[in-house]
Amino acid sequence: MLDRIHLLAAVTVLGVLEQAYFFLQVIYARRAFGISPPKISGPPEFERIFRAQVNCSEYFPIFLALLWQAGLFFHQGLAAALGLLYLYARYCYFMGYKASSSERLAPIYFGTGVLWILVAASVLGILHFFLSHYVGLNLLQLLTA
Amino acid sequence: MLDRIHLLAAVTVLGVLEQAYFFLQVIYARRAFGISPPKISGPPEFERIFRAQVNCSEYFPIFLALLWQAGLFFHQGLAAALGLLYLYARYCYFMGYKASSSERLAPIYFGTGVLWILVAASVLGILHFFLSHYVGLNLLQLLTA
Amino acid sequence: MLDRIHLLAAVTVLGVLEQAYFFLQVIYARRAFGISPPKISGPPEFERIFRAQVNCSEYFPIFLALLWQAGLFFHQGLAAALGLLYLYARYCYFMGYKASSSERLAPIYFGTGVLWILVAASVLGILHFFLSHYVGLNLLQLLTA
Repeated sequence: MLDRIHLLAAVTVLGVLEQAYFFLQVIYARRAFGISPPKISGPPEFERIFRAQVNCSEYFPIFLALLWQAGLFFHQGLAAALGLLYLYARYCYFMGYKASSSERLAPIYFGTGVLWILVAASVLGILHFFLSHYVGLNLLQLLTA
Repeated sequence: MLDRIHLLAAVTVLGVLEQAYFFLQVIYARRAFGISPPKISGPPEFERIFRAQVNCSEYFPIFLALLWQAGLFFHQGLAAALGLLYLYARYCYFMGYKASSSERLAPIYFGTGVLWILVAASVLGILHFFLSHYVGLNLLQLLTA
Repeated sequence: MLDRIHLLAAVTVLGVLEQAYFFLQVIYARRAFGISPPKISGPPEFERIFRAQVNCSEYFPIFLALLWQAGLFFHQGLAAALGLLYLYARYCYFMGYKASSSERLAPIYFGTGVLWILVAASVLGILHFFLSHYVGLNLLQLLTA
């Protein structure tokens, strides 16, 4: 069973490490700008780093959900590759947002694009399973027939 | 294996699409009220939409965790049906909160009720597995004996 | 299949119940301090409880991701035991943060330490699977040879 999920598991753990890196950046920023918890407002430089981390955290469960559905129902290798792309986009987003609000835009568009491809792969994979499971229709056989 | 999770996977992807819809609503609200990131405060109309999205994001991993445990250990079809009810409740919650703070209450109570049923199904399912796995006790056989 | 995940499922549901407890604490604090949604700022006593809940929510998907990878690829029992430790650390963190900002520190360090052990277990487990799957190298056999 594990051979169907080991690439997904590896990308998942890598994603966790990235999240840990973002959390550390916020801790460093809190020290640098002297903003102790529970405060979350401060100069724009701090608030950009803080919001970048919050945004990445909000998207993390969504990313994992899509990574695993696409990997289980469509193709594990493709899902894992898209997952790596997404994590790279998130890194660029964080670094861009840290520099300025506008520099977050290009990587967020790219990352969102990757998520939509994962959505498409998930939907196609699940649809294919439904059709072959309930209707006995094999889309792949039809396409190659 | 996939036939034991395909309904859960379908509801999961639907949930992701709902989250995407909520994220878009915040982006539209930011434009409408002229509130650029990283700012998160503004008129109550904006803050309600923003908080609605944050609340839905915070509950999303909890929802997925319960959906999958209830689906794997209790009954996939029932868990998926409850999952659809929850996603509908969340839609009503978001639209209600957008209109006024008080209109979020009825759907949040309903949605939370659905989550508690998923908790109950998960606990019963896991308990049943523990009893049959470790004690050799089959609750279903006892009830129908 | 369920016997390889039932301990992880049990800890997952327990974690959901803990999150529910934290959400309830915020609702009680909102009533006690008269801070109605969508407002999230108020006296430090309220903000500490609110931030404690947000922090626990942000870490919850990360915790689940590590719990399951460590449990699937390393050892289910060990992962579940570490999971229980983490949930206990989070409870101490919440109660400490409620009392004062400084009292959140010891349990957050402890909880983060537990997460890093889960990271290590996940990485080792996945690495071991990769080596035996792709290279045909069995680390455990090498160590005991």
